[in-house]
Amino acid sequence: MNTLSRTALPSELLVRLRAETPLVQCITNYVAMNVAANVVLATGASPAMVHAAEEVGEFAAIAGAVTINIGTLSPYWLEGMRRAAVAVREAGRPWVLDPVAHFATAFRRDAAVELLELKPDIVRGNASEILALAGAESRGRGVDSQDPVDAAREAAESLARSRGCVVAVTGEEDFVTDGERVARISGGSPLMPKVTALGCSLTCLTGAFAAISPEDGFAATVAAFACFAEAGETAHRQAAGPGSFAAAFLDALHALSPESLDAERRVRWA
Amino acid sequence: MNTLSRTALPSELLVRLRAETPLVQCITNYVAMNVAANVVLATGASPAMVHAAEEVGEFAAIAGAVTINIGTLSPYWLEGMRRAAVAVREAGRPWVLDPVAHFATAFRRDAAVELLELKPDIVRGNASEILALAGAESRGRGVDSQDPVDAAREAAESLARSRGCVVAVTGEEDFVTDGERVARISGGSPLMPKVTALGCSLTCLTGAFAAISPEDGFAATVAAFACFAEAGETAHRQAAGPGSFAAAFLDALHALSPESLDAERRVRWA
Amino acid sequence: MNTLSRTALPSELLVRLRAETPLVQCITNYVAMNVAANVVLATGASPAMVHAAEEVGEFAAIAGAVTINIGTLSPYWLEGMRRAAVAVREAGRPWVLDPVAHFATAFRRDAAVELLELKPDIVRGNASEILALAGAESRGRGVDSQDPVDAAREAAESLARSRGCVVAVTGEEDFVTDGERVARISGGSPLMPKVTALGCSLTCLTGAFAAISPEDGFAATVAAFACFAEAGETAHRQAAGPGSFAAAFLDALHALSPESLDAERRVRWA
Repeated sequence: MNTLSRTALPSELLVRLRAETPLVQCITNYVAMNVAANVVLATGASPAMVHAAEEVGEFAAIAGAVTINIGTLSPYWLEGMRRAAVAVREAGRPWVLDPVAHFATAFRRDAAVELLELKPDIVRGNASEILALAGAESRGRGVDSQDPVDAAREAAESLARSRGCVVAVTGEEDFVTDGERVARISGGSPLMPKVTALGCSLTCLTGAFAAISPEDGFAATVAAFACFAEAGETAHRQAAGPGSFAAAFLDALHALSPESLDAERRVRWA
Repeated sequence: MNTLSRTALPSELLVRLRAETPLVQCITNYVAMNVAANVVLATGASPAMVHAAEEVGEFAAIAGAVTINIGTLSPYWLEGMRRAAVAVREAGRPWVLDPVAHFATAFRRDAAVELLELKPDIVRGNASEILALAGAESRGRGVDSQDPVDAAREAAESLARSRGCVVAVTGEEDFVTDGERVARISGGSPLMPKVTALGCSLTCLTGAFAAISPEDGFAATVAAFACFAEAGETAHRQAAGPGSFAAAFLDALHALSPESLDAERRVRWA
Repeated sequence: MNTLSRTALPSELLVRLRAETPLVQCITNYVAMNVAANVVLATGASPAMVHAAEEVGEFAAIAGAVTINIGTLSPYWLEGMRRAAVAVREAGRPWVLDPVAHFATAFRRDAAVELLELKPDIVRGNASEILALAGAESRGRGVDSQDPVDAAREAAESLARSRGCVVAVTGEEDFVTDGERVARISGGSPLMPKVTALGCSLTCLTGAFAAISPEDGFAATVAAFACFAEAGETAHRQAAGPGSFAAAFLDALHALSPESLDAERRVRWA
């Protein structure tokens, strides 16, 4: 059995996503909420931003997947995150953790550790975040990554094996692993780090793909990343700067042709 | 006396809105705040996003109208909603309720019931939301409507009569009624459901029109809906997808020609 | 020693901003968060939206500057603002206050007074806000200014002297003073008041410039304002309305040529 025969291709998963329009519950930060919802809608799924501790568990039970992002954390939101993570696992559905700048403060660090204990199926971060999460040295400062993706490769594989989850690192070339399989995704645009919350939005889209591929979070993550890489490259050709890029990027996600996602220059399996 | 002689036309109300730039206090969700403020500004009114329980009542007393949307509800926000609804009624000004996905959880359901008791002048929702609010069967799931507008027509009329308010249903063709009068509004774009928070923004714009037409919430609602239908159609002609649509839509609201709103293909009174 | 010899030019500060990419911690309102982060990123700095009382002080100690905006205030956020202001001063770094519509309610008024006591290095507001802050008569209503900038000139100078801070008033022509020096900045676009949260975003960008020019908040403020004036004018030439303006404005900030900022038609020192 080779890797390709057991890992669904991005094209297959995008076709299914558009056909099934999965409901993905996104607990994300205030900066990202609007753009993340638009990213999920444009690609073809149905986002719901529901975070209140009073209802988050009940909602998680009907969602196809949950995504949790600690970008603008507070104790009340953290309580909602806990309950959502527990509820979605009880429902047997996957969830994705985005530990934004978790190394920056003790409050954030403790939250990331606690959420990691609630067993996310997928963890997505930039190189600084993944390095710090794996206990390695990171040059992280603020919310923008200060480390190259390559530096986080080993940390990602180690984290994936020790936690039994998929770990995905975004950067110039993205890196996704479940501890056994590995994929590298190329594309995107140098303008992407100049548009806020695209990483957070990718976490939400990863959740949408996980909802239709709960049995294989690795394939789901690669599919979401391939969509971003392809749409980012398309948008780059049309953009005059980060403002026009943001609009063109949503247009490109909406117009994605599934076949374009599987090209070898886009995804390298290994 | 025929319907046209007692119901102000959208064109008249848009001219007045731009001349009077009413202050509309919008308590809306985190996803919608930015786009809703931009929608209200582009059309010609003055939005204020003020929600804190500590000040919401004092602010409501100076606002021309209040809009309340339960999209990203929490107990603290609910308390602000209660106080704002009470204060705006005491000030003799109208308020608009947008019961986003109120059927999804008990917390949300209870909040919608409680707010409905505080006598909104106008209720705006998608077909699933209006059906569920009227106690009918709905196929609602998450925040996107699963029911056609036609299915909600009777529910809307029944709700309008029993509650003594205007009820407005958005969908491919919009439906507005005060229990006696009925209007159907056509236009818009199939891209609109692919852009998040446009429904929530329409609620805020409906509040802006209600501020200049407090004596006739039906006419105010039809005017707001006609603006959306017209601007959506214009934007559709220029858009390459949901990202460019969102920008073109604000441009189109800003450039709206009042006369274009009254065309029979846009609004059918009956 | 003339004014020019001791005040760094906008061009110099923009070159340094892009080279140093300072980390600016922005506590701003829900409406502004996304656009403010994009404005700061597009111009060349690194924004972090961190507000929780539990971590705001720890984060402020690593930030180059802090900005505080009371747009969507609540008691929990106010506590975070207090702690951030105290921490950033202890760290010897500057902070910027944006007292949005502080005259509208008692809650907001008290918050502005309290924050002013925590000694902001720079205060930015529209004419109505600065007039009211200086104790003068204002026609303020809601969040949009009802007073011309000229009416606030004396109030700004008096406030700058009594508080020992820079005071900046935005409007058709902007006015910046530290009580001794004065600058007027021209440019921008009549579409800017039709796009929500641009003023709030300018506050965040002012913080980014203050981070690289902590010793001279006046020069930092003028530089941020010159960027807005120049980018606003550029975007105006490309925009069809407020929606396309918002995207073109970010593109223009990203493409700013430093030299263009110092032209006499842009900044008048006196």
